[in-house]
Amino acid sequence: MEFSKYIPFWDELTQEQQRGLTDAAVSREVAAGTIVHNGSADCLGLIVVQEGQLRAYALSPEGREVTLYRLFERDMCLFSSACMMRNIQFEVTISAEKDTRLWVIPPEFYKGLMEKSAAVANYTNELLASRLSEVMWLLEQVMWQSFDQRLASFLLEESGLEGTSHLHLTHEKIAGHLGTAREVVTRMLRYFQSEGMVQLSRGTVELKDEKKLALLRDR
Amino acid sequence: MEFSKYIPFWDELTQEQQRGLTDAAVSREVAAGTIVHNGSADCLGLIVVQEGQLRAYALSPEGREVTLYRLFERDMCLFSSACMMRNIQFEVTISAEKDTRLWVIPPEFYKGLMEKSAAVANYTNELLASRLSEVMWLLEQVMWQSFDQRLASFLLEESGLEGTSHLHLTHEKIAGHLGTAREVVTRMLRYFQSEGMVQLSRGTVELKDEKKLALLRDR
Repeated sequence: MEFSKYIPFWDELTQEQQRGLTDAAVSREVAAGTIVHNGSADCLGLIVVQEGQLRAYALSPEGREVTLYRLFERDMCLFSSACMMRNIQFEVTISAEKDTRLWVIPPEFYKGLMEKSAAVANYTNELLASRLSEVMWLLEQVMWQSFDQRLASFLLEESGLEGTSHLHLTHEKIAGHLGTAREVVTRMLRYFQSEGMVQLSRGTVELKDEKKLALLRDR
Repeated sequence: MEFSKYIPFWDELTQEQQRGLTDAAVSREVAAGTIVHNGSADCLGLIVVQEGQLRAYALSPEGREVTLYRLFERDMCLFSSACMMRNIQFEVTISAEKDTRLWVIPPEFYKGLMEKSAAVANYTNELLASRLSEVMWLLEQVMWQSFDQRLASFLLEESGLEGTSHLHLTHEKIAGHLGTAREVVTRMLRYFQSEGMVQLSRGTVELKDEKKLALLRDR
């Protein structure tokens, strides 16, 4: 499918802006595991996902991770061009979870569009508002939910995303998503296993009782 | 001082838009302690603070609070008109911490301005980006910092805000700012006292060693 179909505000642009955007956008393919954007170390540009899956996460000073949100087909990400907006004062790392094809729109070009076009600026507002909603959701989870609820919620979400109850996930990786230590994950997964909710084996977690996990999550 | 001086994008508006905005904005005075905006229960409109101090916070299902950010003179707040933006899916409560004079701009009027004017939409982007930065800062504090660091950071911030080291704050109130239980605050304040960092008395906390508190915060 062509580039223009991935740009929600395409029809609101002038022909000249459409040509400029098409010329400015760079197509890239990245393999699963690649770091696409590394905090404030670079100012890559806006990412538009064509296909695949990206993960945006925050890093602690000690290198602990917590997943902020995922990006799927047609999703756009602003924070890989934070240099473009002076009020963005935090760092996000973005890595590919699956082999991914994406476009990068250079920050200066996007900034120019946004300053001229109310449609582009309003679309950017919507993007910021939905990222803010995701971060608020995470904050509320961390503040008000206990770790067993967060883990149950994460396992159910992953299972939905992958379309299988047999998840290939190490305890280390789960810890990285949830911003905690591996030992904490291992202890809780063993408790889930003793309650019949999951079955553990090397590098995998199998969900055995999704109903019980959902009850725990929504408690 | 007149209304137009509080509107950062005033000069970018047409004369007609300036007149419309002046007519639409409603001036209000609220006493300290008043709930100005109550989650999704209302869609008040955009708040522009003329003078005073507001606090924006999230509430847990059990009624626990955590302070998200403060609003001072000239600050604008969008989330009291979340109904205006379909991607804002979280609730914020806003209350007056001091007697406050403010203007309210009706959500429909602001939305109309934003859709027509790239300048207003770009200003809204900056607002969203700085709120997102504040929420990310809080998330990182909660995820990566221990409670003693967060408490030290809060006491130093309050002291800077009030311009005094003698703070009128109950343990209950501190707990509400930091999203925890009163007992947790009391225990940590007593430890701070035993270390000579604060002096406690009924309803007050006096900072005795700001340098030591800052060292703890930045550890």
